Amino acid sequence: MAVNLAAPDPASLFAVKGVKIGVTEAGVRKPNRKDLMLMTLAPGSRVAAVFTRNRFCAAPVTLAKSHLHGGQIRALLVNTGCANAGTGDDGVLRAAQTCEAVAKLLDCNATQVLPFSTGVIMEPLPMERIVAGLPGCVANLRDNNWALAAQAIMTTDTVAKAYSKRINLGGQQVTLTGIAKGSGMIRPNLATMLGFMATDARIEPSLLQQATTYAAERTFNCVTVDGDTSTNDSFILVATGQSGTVEISKSDSPEFKIFLDAVTEVSLFLAQALVRDGEGATKFITIRVEGGMSETECRKVGYSIAHSPLVKTAFFASDPNLGRILAAIGYAGIEDLDVSKVDLYLDDVMVAKGGGRSPSYREEDGQKVMKQQEIMVRVVLARGTSAATVWTCDLSHDYVSINADYRS
Amino acid sequence: MAVNLAAPDPASLFAVKGVKIGVTEAGVRKPNRKDLMLMTLAPGSRVAAVFTRNRFCAAPVTLAKSHLHGGQIRALLVNTGCANAGTGDDGVLRAAQTCEAVAKLLDCNATQVLPFSTGVIMEPLPMERIVAGLPGCVANLRDNNWALAAQAIMTTDTVAKAYSKRINLGGQQVTLTGIAKGSGMIRPNLATMLGFMATDARIEPSLLQQATTYAAERTFNCVTVDGDTSTNDSFILVATGQSGTVEISKSDSPEFKIFLDAVTEVSLFLAQALVRDGEGATKFITIRVEGGMSETECRKVGYSIAHSPLVKTAFFASDPNLGRILAAIGYAGIEDLDVSKVDLYLDDVMVAKGGGRSPSYREEDGQKVMKQQEIMVRVVLARGTSAATVWTCDLSHDYVSINADYRS
Repeated sequence: MAVNLAAPDPASLFAVKGVKIGVTEAGVRKPNRKDLMLMTLAPGSRVAAVFTRNRFCAAPVTLAKSHLHGGQIRALLVNTGCANAGTGDDGVLRAAQTCEAVAKLLDCNATQVLPFSTGVIMEPLPMERIVAGLPGCVANLRDNNWALAAQAIMTTDTVAKAYSKRINLGGQQVTLTGIAKGSGMIRPNLATMLGFMATDARIEPSLLQQATTYAAERTFNCVTVDGDTSTNDSFILVATGQSGTVEISKSDSPEFKIFLDAVTEVSLFLAQALVRDGEGATKFITIRVEGGMSETECRKVGYSIAHSPLVKTAFFASDPNLGRILAAIGYAGIEDLDVSKVDLYLDDVMVAKGGGRSPSYREEDGQKVMKQQEIMVRVVLARGTSAATVWTCDLSHDYVSINADYRS
Repeated sequence: MAVNLAAPDPASLFAVKGVKIGVTEAGVRKPNRKDLMLMTLAPGSRVAAVFTRNRFCAAPVTLAKSHLHGGQIRALLVNTGCANAGTGDDGVLRAAQTCEAVAKLLDCNATQVLPFSTGVIMEPLPMERIVAGLPGCVANLRDNNWALAAQAIMTTDTVAKAYSKRINLGGQQVTLTGIAKGSGMIRPNLATMLGFMATDARIEPSLLQQATTYAAERTFNCVTVDGDTSTNDSFILVATGQSGTVEISKSDSPEFKIFLDAVTEVSLFLAQALVRDGEGATKFITIRVEGGMSETECRKVGYSIAHSPLVKTAFFASDPNLGRILAAIGYAGIEDLDVSKVDLYLDDVMVAKGGGRSPSYREEDGQKVMKQQEIMVRVVLARGTSAATVWTCDLSHDYVSINADYRS
């Protein structure tokens, strides 16, 4: 059960001019399941991306990076069921062959296709099934298939994740629609967070990349379920330029600001949705760290709390065992942290003041907050003016069940 | 159920000349439970220590560090049930008062007493109960109370942990006996790994500290259950000098080498015992990383694997889902790692070769190893000559139960 997250209403997902989507059941790993998605892009579309930093990056990631350099991308191909990671040169060859098959059907070059995979690591990509499924995808190509696309990239996600937004740029309507699946290695074998967003805005390529990186840093890179970084993580932002608006070409223009905010809003919804649908999640936890000397150190503290199995199990149990949070702050790696200045809040309840239990703190107040489905942890380091926020979920029995039992 | 770990036979634990131990039921947190241990040291004893690096270090740790500077330590006082951490200045005051009470009873100075606590964080130390329990400890002081001492420092440990060794130094018999409890924050509220070892060897203080640090680096600092670093972790090595041997005074002497090896052997047994008795542990896993450019990077990779909830749940499930290990290697933070050279073994089974699935690997071979209670993961980075080993356990349903349900 995802925490306060429902499947998107297909009617709420706006088509993006210049983008068509087709899905099919290719039987990559299991029968009777949408597992292959093809997204075609109008000529002239621009594509920006951020990829996993895992050194064991998957074959499709390697290939997608290389194809992106060439520019003129015309299609994205996404399969679930097999990550094509830890597969060496053979994996790259197989991914390349799926791109060639797409290119033949769409009459473009293989280097104009970006491949993405998610699923079991260290197993060979069943290329033949993917190639055999492609005509089905092509026959299914539609403007308004975003809800289906969100389903077709799911692995063990329990809820499809998608979000649309319309903005006004210079009097013209511009649409942004995005989908995503799985967070970090939130998913067991079916690893990978994949996010795809498209807009019909016209925007200069370097600004598009800037917006992609900016949004990812503040959203997808601020969520964690179990701290495992996938081999396949990718976030792609496509701008087809079909909206008829003037090109956004200056980073200090009001249009770029509006665009940036919209990309970040869509990304934030998707990123938080990944946490809400985190494996076994029963709580959605926002960790806000303030008063740091840099955003980096605030994020370090936030992640230290977010990754602590002890903190996460305490949230699962609704147990205000909050010394665990102090301990996690203490080992976050800030060597010169003066803990006697640290305050800790749970929503509006002051739990610790000056590094010790707050005189005003009553356990029943902490308990009340811990029982909520949505909880804000606020840490004040009192050594600077920087802040950062990360989002995470609790660690429940279901997390262990899902991860231990999946392949059994 | 601890993995292949039985309670020590009291007869196997040798007394250490110059050390007496008394325990009592002080009712620190719960009645009818040994929870206070006093260890007295003969005059002239030397004490070395390593402490937690957690910035939120507990009040007793702060005080013990300060008292150690003064030298001439005559007693160690250990309570379970309350960690006296996250308690600010009041916590230090309370710890100091327990030292004063010990000093009065033993006719020494309060600064000659080292206090240690383990238990719930952010709750005030019930000083009165501890002070009231002290006469019982004194009345119980014996040479051969090591097995009781191992019990009296337990929190939710399921098995007491102790180990003794005798060595020959220049024709004289020298004894080393050690006890330990809980690993890192393996224990829920009852956090803390505490380790106490005593020997009757005579050894120069700086060499004693060198041996302590050396052994801790290779044993206690190489085990992990959940990656949480406690606020109270302490490892203490006492040398009473009562064995009648010549003082060990040179770091290149054969005697020091023999001593160092013995301290390391006792520490290793205790450190591994912590993992074997890890919360909910059903498997004992040795992770050996070889061919690194430095010990540090090998340890980084080892910990990355050991801390991955996905890897740990796979071990729990006996599921050879070994791509998860490759992924953990990939995000260990070695920026220039060439994954196409990495080999991975499970015991003698080659799983991955050159970064991809080994052609010789058969899943049933991996499965067979995964079903064992003791498993060796071996990673060959093939970029240098350094190596490191870390020890960990799996992540089971019981881990979540123990940590989520403890205070409920």
